[in-house]
Amino acid sequence: IMNRDKDFHRFALCVEYCGSEFSGWQRQRNAPSVQQTLEMALSKLDPGRPTVTGAGRTDSGVHATGQVAHVDLERRWNPFRLREAANAKLRPASIAVLKVSEVDRQFSARTSAVMREYRYKITNRRAPRAVGFKLAWHVRSRLDCGAMMNGARRLTGKHDFTTFRAAQCQAHSPVKTLEGIEIHTVELPFGSEIAITFRARSFLHRQVRSIVGTLVKVGEGAWRPEEVTVALKARSRDACGPVAPAHGLYLSNVKYRPDPFDRDFRNG
Amino acid sequence: IMNRDKDFHRFALCVEYCGSEFSGWQRQRNAPSVQQTLEMALSKLDPGRPTVTGAGRTDSGVHATGQVAHVDLERRWNPFRLREAANAKLRPASIAVLKVSEVDRQFSARTSAVMREYRYKITNRRAPRAVGFKLAWHVRSRLDCGAMMNGARRLTGKHDFTTFRAAQCQAHSPVKTLEGIEIHTVELPFGSEIAITFRARSFLHRQVRSIVGTLVKVGEGAWRPEEVTVALKARSRDACGPVAPAHGLYLSNVKYRPDPFDRDFRNG
Repeated sequence: IMNRDKDFHRFALCVEYCGSEFSGWQRQRNAPSVQQTLEMALSKLDPGRPTVTGAGRTDSGVHATGQVAHVDLERRWNPFRLREAANAKLRPASIAVLKVSEVDRQFSARTSAVMREYRYKITNRRAPRAVGFKLAWHVRSRLDCGAMMNGARRLTGKHDFTTFRAAQCQAHSPVKTLEGIEIHTVELPFGSEIAITFRARSFLHRQVRSIVGTLVKVGEGAWRPEEVTVALKARSRDACGPVAPAHGLYLSNVKYRPDPFDRDFRNG
Repeated sequence: IMNRDKDFHRFALCVEYCGSEFSGWQRQRNAPSVQQTLEMALSKLDPGRPTVTGAGRTDSGVHATGQVAHVDLERRWNPFRLREAANAKLRPASIAVLKVSEVDRQFSARTSAVMREYRYKITNRRAPRAVGFKLAWHVRSRLDCGAMMNGARRLTGKHDFTTFRAAQCQAHSPVKTLEGIEIHTVELPFGSEIAITFRARSFLHRQVRSIVGTLVKVGEGAWRPEEVTVALKARSRDACGPVAPAHGLYLSNVKYRPDPFDRDFRNG
């Protein structure tokens, strides 16, 4: 806000973080948030008091591999140097700035986003997960991905998602358009890894985790796929399956038109 | 040893663990080892004092997704129940027993192994790794995988690997046969993930990490591929590149004839 009064330069940042280390994206008292950790690192670099705005306010424990944020700085940074400097100041925090770009003052990481992508990772096997156990949900019972896909198809499109919305959700309307749900399975030498990808312009609070918990019920055979339609039509939180845990969820991508990171960052 | 005196049953265990949590495989004073943690869990289940013998004595920080061990127990366990019970006793240690099988008394996880496979994971990008940062080596400079493969090919086959052997290595001979090195690259939306897989009947101490450190020098362009041949022929530790860090390395598979885990564990 104070930056608005003077000359400033707006930057978009693409950010990765490990949700296990933070109480979520949003700044709060007495708990380490991603937003505050980023702001503290940037305030060591720039004379202003940078405020960071993110595309998605991820819950405690939720990871990101493609969160996007914007920040106003007094200095006109070279984007590559800003990235290197921010990562140096962030060390050893579990946050990495992947890409930086100067954007115009109308750009908002939150309101300019045209598509958000979340990915939910499941390790499906009997034995617990010992390597990276906070990086995927461990589901012991064998999941039928065909049945899960059958259930998922019933949720794509424009619907009233009241059933799959947290009680504390602050969105004005429960109506959202789910552009797509994809389920990708990799058979490993032992068990399998399942990734469920969701795309929409915006999501309700806990919508993805509520849907995943319900789809896992279908995959386990505890629900028939048709019961997903019944749950959706009920427009009642009580009709939802259990909410899947935070540590399997990743904010994996946010899209804008035009892409603020149009330079070739492919090689890292 | 004490088990030899009475009736016992030998079991093979396929084990996954996160190396970051342990001082390595081998039991030692005042430091948590994988071997000791497994033995303590099994001693809560079986009246004997189980001693666990592993196929590979992984160093501190090295992970495993397919370590194999054998253990002698007094009770004749159902393998599936032993797996479930061991995993329950291991919780919340970062060790998971993936497969269990009863084997004959001649089977040794260490001496019966006909092939060991190690995998080394590299995240190749400028920005640090925030999610699972202890699960791969972060290399900032862009790696040329073609050049690395050219260097790797010079090391396959039977050679005196003195150059790529730790000073403290206890093997009788520095001559080993490297059956194969494969380099697999996955381009991500941001940077790339490189996995280098090594197969041999047995390895010298730090052989894989010494070779990976050298191949990364080639990938960075600091060494020409031909210099790998020069280093190998030097048969001198001084000719080796820097040793790659432990946290990128995984003991990924150990093979036996016949396969002790011939039952269908594919579904976990």
